[in-house]
Amino acid sequence: MTTSLASLAEFRNLLRSMPECDAEAMEEARAHNGILTKPPGALGRLEDLAVWYRGWRGGPQVEIASPQIIVFAGNHGVAARGVSAFPAEVTAQMVANFQHGGAAINQIARVNGATLDVVPLALDKPTQDFTVASAMTDAELLDALCAGWDAVNSDADLLVVGEMGIANTTSAAALASALLGGGSRFWTGRGTGVDDAGLLLKTKVVDEGVALHADHGDGLETLRRLGGRELAAMAGAMARARQLRIPVILDGFICCAAALCLVRTAPGALDHCVAGHLSAESGHRRLLGAMDKEPLLELNLRLGEGSGAGLAIGILKAALACHAGMATFAEAGVSDA
Amino acid sequence: MTTSLASLAEFRNLLRSMPECDAEAMEEARAHNGILTKPPGALGRLEDLAVWYRGWRGGPQVEIASPQIIVFAGNHGVAARGVSAFPAEVTAQMVANFQHGGAAINQIARVNGATLDVVPLALDKPTQDFTVASAMTDAELLDALCAGWDAVNSDADLLVVGEMGIANTTSAAALASALLGGGSRFWTGRGTGVDDAGLLLKTKVVDEGVALHADHGDGLETLRRLGGRELAAMAGAMARARQLRIPVILDGFICCAAALCLVRTAPGALDHCVAGHLSAESGHRRLLGAMDKEPLLELNLRLGEGSGAGLAIGILKAALACHAGMATFAEAGVSDA
Repeated sequence: MTTSLASLAEFRNLLRSMPECDAEAMEEARAHNGILTKPPGALGRLEDLAVWYRGWRGGPQVEIASPQIIVFAGNHGVAARGVSAFPAEVTAQMVANFQHGGAAINQIARVNGATLDVVPLALDKPTQDFTVASAMTDAELLDALCAGWDAVNSDADLLVVGEMGIANTTSAAALASALLGGGSRFWTGRGTGVDDAGLLLKTKVVDEGVALHADHGDGLETLRRLGGRELAAMAGAMARARQLRIPVILDGFICCAAALCLVRTAPGALDHCVAGHLSAESGHRRLLGAMDKEPLLELNLRLGEGSGAGLAIGILKAALACHAGMATFAEAGVSDA
Repeated sequence: MTTSLASLAEFRNLLRSMPECDAEAMEEARAHNGILTKPPGALGRLEDLAVWYRGWRGGPQVEIASPQIIVFAGNHGVAARGVSAFPAEVTAQMVANFQHGGAAINQIARVNGATLDVVPLALDKPTQDFTVASAMTDAELLDALCAGWDAVNSDADLLVVGEMGIANTTSAAALASALLGGGSRFWTGRGTGVDDAGLLLKTKVVDEGVALHADHGDGLETLRRLGGRELAAMAGAMARARQLRIPVILDGFICCAAALCLVRTAPGALDHCVAGHLSAESGHRRLLGAMDKEPLLELNLRLGEGSGAGLAIGILKAALACHAGMATFAEAGVSDA
């Protein structure tokens, strides 16, 4: 048991008293953006990203130098119901692959100059099958939140959290369905690639979980009942990043389901987060909509691992590089409009 | 006068006898992609990009190590009609800004590990106003094509061509309208930010040019009549890249108008090109559609300079890094589905 968070009550309190965006830094950033050598607004979303980023970091314009990617891995009791196209042992096998540098996220991290940390969470002890019990006890949830909280490097200037966990799109669909309603079939997708029969079974499993656990508490309690260790760790890391004023790029469906649990515990808990991409997993568009986040990329990815958000690091880096590195009209002697 | 291309006739002949995609290398790439440690298709467009790129480069899987960005600059006689929000001297001022590292494309090149070359083209000698004469003579067109042709580094493994030229969205709109029809107002946008009255005037100017020059020849002849030096240089560089089997990322509206002139001279001339982004310039979506290209990014940019395509370099780099660097299921000891 770590001691970074003493209790779930402390975590809830922290979530509700997090630092806010620095309005003065944002205003400064907006003014600086307005005198750079480009037509007003011509860099589109890059301009908004730079202003948003500077608001969260505070202080003068800087480039992004130390992005951190953390991949959390966990196993799910509900995998035994046959909801995934892959066997449960793949979670541990992929953790070894991450550690040896052979996965997609390793290459994406390298290309974008990000560090990559891999945090396996009690892989030999899957969560409980949420169709028969709560996935985690209070103590297990707290442990997983702490693992995420502690994994964030306080020197990082941008954070991506990714995951690996066979059956975790089932868990994510159950969380979204329980917290947002609309029926399980709207949230249940093919994950790593189940066939039609697999999708039918998966939807039924999600339904059973939602019937047992929905309307039994806030986002955090729903996370305990229907989530998994890697989802809780992602939530813990995103919250810790907020405390440290480190902006976060959200990844796909599973990462966003974890994020949803935060915002359903404390409104505004995701103000320091931007959506990295729209996943091909069917419920992701709706989930982003529910959190009022507009994705930066849409490349039909559905891999997890933080891959989509990892790709978006390059976009954010470029946005800040333009903001910090471009000459002003006066400096460059360029005539204004 | 350079000697890299002896005549426009030679350029036309070269365009019609360019190297094709290596089907064997593509097939090898597809097979390799299928055994990498990810669910089939989970990397979405990154997988397609890697297969396409390897087809054009041929040989074994490699990462992208030497991307080149070239920004061509030219001045337009039609600028005197008041079609831009900025005065014509801004073209030369921005060239100095590129050379001193102060523009957006300098920062985007640096973040993506690309070299940046800046090629000003007779800035003190604007093209003719295309509402009264052809923009260029045959000799001027050939010179500009050669400038583009010669600027491509044969050691580059990816090319982006960008531009700077006050009034060049007017020229691009005229090219698109002349070659694709549909009426000038569908192709004429706000460029660097003209107001409603400016847009009305700009559309009228495009109409006049199209009335004078449409249906007078192929893409190359239309480029001579309605284009500009930087548009012709971009076309020359894209063609040279094809000859060298260097894949190209298309930028926004102006780059795509230059590309359109190539494909309307020789079908298939853009098979080695992928669309980097969808610009906020109003005609770009329609122009990409006419060339059957799906943009990689949509970030509301409308700057030119190669900025949108420059951002997409990071996506292509990541695609190839995954393709070349990921472990196979067998290598990593990961169970297949």
